Amino acid sequence: MAYTAPVEQISFILNNIVGFPELANSERFADATSETAEAILSEAGKMATNVLAPLNRNGDEHPAVLENGKLRSSPGYAEGFRAIAEGGWIGLPANPDYGGMGLPQALNMSVSEMMAGACLSLQLNPLLTQGQIEALEHHASDELKSLYLPKLISGEWSGTMNLTEPGAGSDVGALSSKAERNDDGTYSVTGQKIFITWGDSDVTENVCHLVLARLPDGGKGTKGISLFMVPKLIPDAEGNPGVANSLKVVSLEEKLGIHGSPTCVMSYDGATGWLVGKEHGGMAAMFTMMNVARLGVGMQGVGVAEAALQQAVAYAHDRNQMGPIIQHPDVRRMLATARAEIFAARAICLACATAIDMEIATGDAEHAARAAFLTPIAKAYGTDVGCRVADTGVQVHGGMGYVEETGAAQYLRDVRITPIYEGTNGIQAMDLVGRKLSDGGEAAMRLLDEILDGAKAVQPSHPDLANQVWQAAETLREATQEMLERDMAERFAGAVPYLSAFARVLGGAYHLKAAQNGGADHLALARVYMARVLPRYASDLVEAQAGLADLSQIDDAVLAGEFRA
Amino acid sequence: MAYTAPVEQISFILNNIVGFPELANSERFADATSETAEAILSEAGKMATNVLAPLNRNGDEHPAVLENGKLRSSPGYAEGFRAIAEGGWIGLPANPDYGGMGLPQALNMSVSEMMAGACLSLQLNPLLTQGQIEALEHHASDELKSLYLPKLISGEWSGTMNLTEPGAGSDVGALSSKAERNDDGTYSVTGQKIFITWGDSDVTENVCHLVLARLPDGGKGTKGISLFMVPKLIPDAEGNPGVANSLKVVSLEEKLGIHGSPTCVMSYDGATGWLVGKEHGGMAAMFTMMNVARLGVGMQGVGVAEAALQQAVAYAHDRNQMGPIIQHPDVRRMLATARAEIFAARAICLACATAIDMEIATGDAEHAARAAFLTPIAKAYGTDVGCRVADTGVQVHGGMGYVEETGAAQYLRDVRITPIYEGTNGIQAMDLVGRKLSDGGEAAMRLLDEILDGAKAVQPSHPDLANQVWQAAETLREATQEMLERDMAERFAGAVPYLSAFARVLGGAYHLKAAQNGGADHLALARVYMARVLPRYASDLVEAQAGLADLSQIDDAVLAGEFRA
Repeated sequence: MAYTAPVEQISFILNNIVGFPELANSERFADATSETAEAILSEAGKMATNVLAPLNRNGDEHPAVLENGKLRSSPGYAEGFRAIAEGGWIGLPANPDYGGMGLPQALNMSVSEMMAGACLSLQLNPLLTQGQIEALEHHASDELKSLYLPKLISGEWSGTMNLTEPGAGSDVGALSSKAERNDDGTYSVTGQKIFITWGDSDVTENVCHLVLARLPDGGKGTKGISLFMVPKLIPDAEGNPGVANSLKVVSLEEKLGIHGSPTCVMSYDGATGWLVGKEHGGMAAMFTMMNVARLGVGMQGVGVAEAALQQAVAYAHDRNQMGPIIQHPDVRRMLATARAEIFAARAICLACATAIDMEIATGDAEHAARAAFLTPIAKAYGTDVGCRVADTGVQVHGGMGYVEETGAAQYLRDVRITPIYEGTNGIQAMDLVGRKLSDGGEAAMRLLDEILDGAKAVQPSHPDLANQVWQAAETLREATQEMLERDMAERFAGAVPYLSAFARVLGGAYHLKAAQNGGADHLALARVYMARVLPRYASDLVEAQAGLADLSQIDDAVLAGEFRA
Repeated sequence: MAYTAPVEQISFILNNIVGFPELANSERFADATSETAEAILSEAGKMATNVLAPLNRNGDEHPAVLENGKLRSSPGYAEGFRAIAEGGWIGLPANPDYGGMGLPQALNMSVSEMMAGACLSLQLNPLLTQGQIEALEHHASDELKSLYLPKLISGEWSGTMNLTEPGAGSDVGALSSKAERNDDGTYSVTGQKIFITWGDSDVTENVCHLVLARLPDGGKGTKGISLFMVPKLIPDAEGNPGVANSLKVVSLEEKLGIHGSPTCVMSYDGATGWLVGKEHGGMAAMFTMMNVARLGVGMQGVGVAEAALQQAVAYAHDRNQMGPIIQHPDVRRMLATARAEIFAARAICLACATAIDMEIATGDAEHAARAAFLTPIAKAYGTDVGCRVADTGVQVHGGMGYVEETGAAQYLRDVRITPIYEGTNGIQAMDLVGRKLSDGGEAAMRLLDEILDGAKAVQPSHPDLANQVWQAAETLREATQEMLERDMAERFAGAVPYLSAFARVLGGAYHLKAAQNGGADHLALARVYMARVLPRYASDLVEAQAGLADLSQIDDAVLAGEFRA
C-alpha cells in the first residue's frame, strides 16, 4: 500500500491541458506562478506520501469511536491533521486577510486529490472545513469572519455541514430542524441531523457546525431555510473556546468504509447559533459550500483511483502466474483502461477547478457557466472512475483482493461513498440536464465547439484520434440539441448516461491534447482511451435518448419480480 | 431484508425460454415433469425464504471463528444446513443409487440460486459438496463412492476443493503440494492450501477434502498432478468418522464479505489420502468439479442480484423524497435496468444448465459443446450482474446504503467474491475465446444461427425488438469470425468485452422470446433491455476488436503513473 503522490501527472495536466498557467496573468492569481505551483505540489505531495498514506490502514482497522459522548479518532490522525494544518493546506485557497494563501482552486484541488489518495477518511475533515471557510467568506458578517476564519484556516478548529435529516436527504427542503430568535441577536437551534461527517473531533480544539434550520416564519420548502453557525464550544470574549453548547453526538454510523471518518448523528437542543447570510437565505450559502465540495468529492474519486491503481500495478508486477501477470493481456487491459480513465477524470476535475478560478479572477459569466457546467460532470465521473478503478484493483489482486489484509478492498469500500454524498451521482446528472442546460445549452455548446475546434487542430498530426473525438463531439452536440427539446422527466430518465457520454467525450478531448502536447507515453495512453473508453459514448447516448417511454410502461410489481401471466 | 424466493420467475424461464420441458421426454430425466419441477421449486423456495434468508445477517455480523483449532460457524447456520440437507437439496442432481434424486441440473441450479440469494455464505457449503459429489461420481473407485457418496448426499458430511496455494492461483500447475504412495494403497499428502471455502465445519460430522498434489514421479505443470480424497476424520470399518487425519486449519481469512463462510488456510502434514481417478490425472477430475461449480457461481450472482434488487425496490417504494423515489425517472431507470439484467443472466445460466442436462440425457456432442460454450458466459455475466445490481442496490438506498445496518452493503461485499473465485471472470473470458472457440467457432455459430432464426420468427409480431436482436447477432457473428482469425494474445486482449457482448446478445434473444411467449410485463421488460442493456454490445465489440496493439505500446511505468517527457 505504498502510495506515491502523483505530482508529475498533476503538473502535466495543469500546465499542458487545462490552462492553469493563464491564471498567473490575472491580478487575482498573480502569485500562482509555475514555480509556486511546483513548490506547493511537491511539498504537499511529500506530506501525502510520507505522513498521510501510512495512516490509511489505521483508520480502517481502528475506526473512530464514541466513548462517554466523546470522540476518539483513529491512531495517528491527530498528527496527520496537524501536518495538514501546519502545511497551510487548509487555507490554501482562502482569503489572505484571514491567514489564507489566496491561491487557485486548481492547486487546492490538486493537493486535495493527493491527500484523499493517501488517506480519504482523514482528508474529509479539511475538505469540509474548506467548504465552511468558503461559505463564511461569502455569506457571514465581518464579525463572524474575524472570529471564525483565522481559527478554521489555521486548523485550530474544524468545520462541518449539517443538511441531512432522517426524512430529508436529497429533498433538503423537507427538513424539520427549527430555529428561534433570541433577544441578543443569536438564535436557538433545535433538531436532529444525520450523516454529519467529522461531527466531532479530538484533532481540533473546537468544531464549528453550519446547520440548516427553519425559523418560525420560514416558509415551506428550501426558501424558508436559514443557515446558522453553531459551535461545539462557544467562543469567549477573547475568541477562545468557552462553554459547551447544547449539542451532542448521539451515535456514530457503522459504515461500509471510511471507518476513520466519524459519521455522526447530531442532536441540537436549543443550541446557540449565529445567522450566516440572510434569514431564509440559507440555501444560497449552503450551495456556495456545496459547489466546491462537489468538485472536491470528484477529486476524492480520482485520488483513491490513483492509489488503488498504484497498488494493483505493483501487485501485477510482482505476481507470477506463468510470467508476471502485468504482461497478461487481460490484466494489462484492466490496468491500462484504469490509467486512461484516471487521466481523463483528473483532467475534467482540474478543468473545472481552473474554470472556477477564471471566474474568480475575471468575474466573467462565461467562465462561471463553464465552471457550473463542469461541476456535476467532475463529481459524477470522478467518483465513478474512483469506484471502477478500485474495483479493478480488487479484481487484479484475484483472491488476495478479497482478503482485507492487502488493502485493495479498503479502497473499494472507502470510495463507494463518493457517488452518494454531496448529492448522489443521479442528482448530479439531473443538475446537468436540468439547471445546467437551462441556458438553452449555451455553456454545453461552447464547450463542444472548443472540443470540435481542438480536434480539427490536431487532425493533421493525429488524424485517426482527432477524427474519433470530432465524430463523438459532433454526435454529442446533436444529442444535446435533442435533450434540450425534451421535458424534464424525459431528460432525467436519460441524465446519467448523458453525463457519462459527456465525460467520455471531454476525456477524449483532453487525451487528444495530451497526445499533441506530451510525449510518446501520452500518445500511447490516448490510444488506449480511444479504443476502450471513448467508444462507449455511443451506447450511453442510445440510452440517454431512450427517454422515459420504456420506464413508464413498467409496472412497480415487475421491478419487484412479479409478472402478470 | 425480506427476501422472497423468485419461484414464478424461475418457473417462467424454465418452461418458456430454455426448453426445460423437453428434458422430461428423455429416459434419463423422465421424472422431471412439470409437476415435479413445480413442487421442488415451491418447497425449496419456501425453505430459502423462511429458513435461510433470516440467517443472512447473522453470518455477516457473527462470522465463523476458529477457537483452539476448532471452527465455530455463525449462529443458526447448523440449523440452516440441516434444513438444506433434510430437504434433499444437496443430492438433487446426484445418482439415486447413492441416495440422490437424479434430477436435472436446471432444477438444481434453480434451487441453488434461491439458496444463494437467501444466504450466500451458507449456500457455499452445499455448492462445494455437490461439486465433490460429481467429481466422485465420475472419477472415484466404487469403494470410495460407496463410502463417501451416501454421506455427502445426505449432508452428514460436507466436501471441499483444495486447489490454490500461495504461489499457485490461476496457475494451478505451479502447485507444490506433494503426495507419496504408502504400502497399503493409500497416499500421504503434504502441503499448504489457501482459500479453502468451508475448510472446516461444525455443521457436519466430517469434512472431506479433495486435494490436488504431485506424486514423486508426477511431471511439471498440470499433467503431473493427482487428486486425493483426504477426510478430516478417517472413516472406520463401519464407515463412521474415526481417528483424526494429519491435517488442520491454520487460520481463517478476514474478508470483504461472505463472513459466514470460513475461508481456511489448510495444512496437510502427511495426511492419509485416497486416490481419485488416475495417478497424474487429477486435473480432469478437478475440471469435472469445476464446470458445474462455475455455473453454480454464476447462479450465485443472479441470486444475490435478485435479493439486492428486491430490497432496493422495497426501499424505493417506501422512501419519500418529493414523492416515492421509485417514481423518480433515474431511480426507476436503475431498478428497471437491474430487473432486465437479472432476467437475462438467469436465462443464460438456466440455458447452460439445460444444455448440460441435454448432454447427460442424450450424450450428444452438440449439447456438450453448447454447455461448454455457455459455462464461462454464465459464470462471468451472472457474477457481473450480481455485482452491478448489488451496487445499484446501494446507490438506490443513498446514504442509508452506505450504512451497514440496512444490509444493502452486505450484498455488495458478499457478491464481490463471485467474479474472482472458481476462475476469475478474465479467465472465463479467455476460456471462451480460447478453448471454446477451438472448434473453429462451430458452437458459437450454431448458437448465433439459432438467435438469428429466433429473431426472424418474432419479426412479424415485434419488428423493432426482433430487428435489434437480429442486427446485434449478425454483428456478433462477424466479430466472432474476426476473433477466430486472431492469435491467442490478441484474442485474450479482447476476451472480456467479447464475452460481455455475447452475453448481451444472448440476453436479448431470451428477452425477445419472453416478449413473444409472455405477457405485457415481459414485453415491457424486453423494451427496457433493448433500450439500455443490449446496445452496449456495440462498444463491447469495438473494444474486443482493438486487440493488443494499444496495450503492447504502453510502458509498464505508465501504468504506474510515470510518463516520460
